[in-house]
Amino acid sequence: MKLATVGTSWITERFLKAAVVTQGLEPYGVFSRNIDKAKAFGAPYGASVFYNDYQQLLDDPNVEIVYIGAPNSLHFSYMDRAIDAGKAVICEKPFVSTMKEFQQIKRKVVEKRAFVFEAITTLSMPNYTSIKENLQKIAPVHIAKVDFSQFSSRYPQLQAGERTNIFDPAFSGGALYDLGVYGVHLAVGLFGAPQDVVCFCNNKQYGVDISGMLLLKYPDKVCNITFSKDTHSTTITEFQGEKGYLTVRGSTGRCDCIGLALVGEDEQDISLEQSDNPMEYEAAAFVKAIQNDDWNYVMQALNQSETVMDILCKARKSAGIVFEADKA
Amino acid sequence: MKLATVGTSWITERFLKAAVVTQGLEPYGVFSRNIDKAKAFGAPYGASVFYNDYQQLLDDPNVEIVYIGAPNSLHFSYMDRAIDAGKAVICEKPFVSTMKEFQQIKRKVVEKRAFVFEAITTLSMPNYTSIKENLQKIAPVHIAKVDFSQFSSRYPQLQAGERTNIFDPAFSGGALYDLGVYGVHLAVGLFGAPQDVVCFCNNKQYGVDISGMLLLKYPDKVCNITFSKDTHSTTITEFQGEKGYLTVRGSTGRCDCIGLALVGEDEQDISLEQSDNPMEYEAAAFVKAIQNDDWNYVMQALNQSETVMDILCKARKSAGIVFEADKA
Repeated sequence: MKLATVGTSWITERFLKAAVVTQGLEPYGVFSRNIDKAKAFGAPYGASVFYNDYQQLLDDPNVEIVYIGAPNSLHFSYMDRAIDAGKAVICEKPFVSTMKEFQQIKRKVVEKRAFVFEAITTLSMPNYTSIKENLQKIAPVHIAKVDFSQFSSRYPQLQAGERTNIFDPAFSGGALYDLGVYGVHLAVGLFGAPQDVVCFCNNKQYGVDISGMLLLKYPDKVCNITFSKDTHSTTITEFQGEKGYLTVRGSTGRCDCIGLALVGEDEQDISLEQSDNPMEYEAAAFVKAIQNDDWNYVMQALNQSETVMDILCKARKSAGIVFEADKA
Repeated sequence: MKLATVGTSWITERFLKAAVVTQGLEPYGVFSRNIDKAKAFGAPYGASVFYNDYQQLLDDPNVEIVYIGAPNSLHFSYMDRAIDAGKAVICEKPFVSTMKEFQQIKRKVVEKRAFVFEAITTLSMPNYTSIKENLQKIAPVHIAKVDFSQFSSRYPQLQAGERTNIFDPAFSGGALYDLGVYGVHLAVGLFGAPQDVVCFCNNKQYGVDISGMLLLKYPDKVCNITFSKDTHSTTITEFQGEKGYLTVRGSTGRCDCIGLALVGEDEQDISLEQSDNPMEYEAAAFVKAIQNDDWNYVMQALNQSETVMDILCKARKSAGIVFEADKA
């Protein structure tokens, strides 16, 4: 399938690197308002068609699938127009900004039977499947502490008075939507929709949250999700069960390092080896779903995204985080 | 000072062991409804007077200080009567069950200038002072995750249908009041009173919480407190700051193992060596306050206990945990 990309940051570049090694996916077109930037960005990965107008990309009948790595606030309109143009879509997390946006996308996905996916690395990692299986060994789990803290080099810039998209409410920025979304996807993937959601955030004087914590209530468990771009951390995620505990050390976007401790036993490293580029797994999964016409996969992924968006929006309401997108 | 004790469980025995090595404190009397039990319990620690009626203890003019290690729900009445009898009091955590109880104790403490202390090991540990000092090096702290999880051997008994005081709402039981109280004292000791408190709990079908999590909101930080008697855990407490992080591994009642990682450096073990019996430190601190007529110490400790009780009661309200004591 011929792939065209939107956005020229590191995340889109990482996806192009994954696309190059993904069977059935072929870097073809790149959109950037600056055509020279589009060429310089896409040519190294084999892209050969460049657009400085998004409509050109949508009008190109050769483009079969669009990857959207633009700022969060633009996900909705790029995705909405791509669906209208009959393209398959891979949209970077967070899927959209608001539930209103989500419902419009969902309506179109169902109406047009569009193959649309939220790119959230966690759920396609081999170790995610391993976590899911191994949690059965320590079940029931009553306490889950999920962490994605990563000090941002842009935070000192923000403190110095510079504006930056990732911390701008006009771009649906902040740590919850950037990092917290991984933890929420992990929790929802493992435990489903919670009964109750509370969120407290820090540093809101910058217009969005720079760090904070979510608390999710389930019938038999409580889940804490930490997200932080203004602190340093061991970044340990832990699931506590009646028969032992399971740890994830490092990024919950990758889940590289998994430990399992059954009652009375030492913690064992049960990590599976994973590729350096976590996006290879999601790229392969999405292509496979399209090739197999696996509509069930699309709907399950969309349900997952809906539950996650619902939590993110409830969390923002709870913590008092308002985006420009809320005013639309 | 001549010490008399109330309660014959392991916690009172541990306090007697601490009293034996505390200058100025002398095991003297033991109260138990069963006089033989009182003798067998207290004699090994040098106690020589035994009561099977609490009033006898209060009427004994030789008793100068009373240690209360009875079930939580009885703390209030034992303490209230001891203050009336003009004794100094060391009451095991949690101080009381309700804010109504707290206010009555506070009124009497102030009126009678009574030397009354909540026994909460954490705050007198050498490593607590070290945590407080070293947090300055990573300040500002925006994220704190405090954990006291300890699988209870009585939980399987509870599941099997047996009743046990520590999980009985008639005795103000549950994990929040038993273990969570350590984390709340640690948070309040380090950060003061929070602006907002939310609590979700598990396993309430047993009448109280068996595990759960608190979320405390401060102006510049969010603090999660985990307490669990129904799961296994690594039991890591972590403070995340802009200039590094600080970890506490193991019980927050002891804070034995402290690690500090400044930005760009590996985590260093900064633990101070501590006694095997953590109650030695609080015993020494309370005796010193009495001997120095340090009324300021008493009032500061009482303020700390008030903030902690306020959080515990708000947490119970938030999580829907009701004690018999609430109906008084």
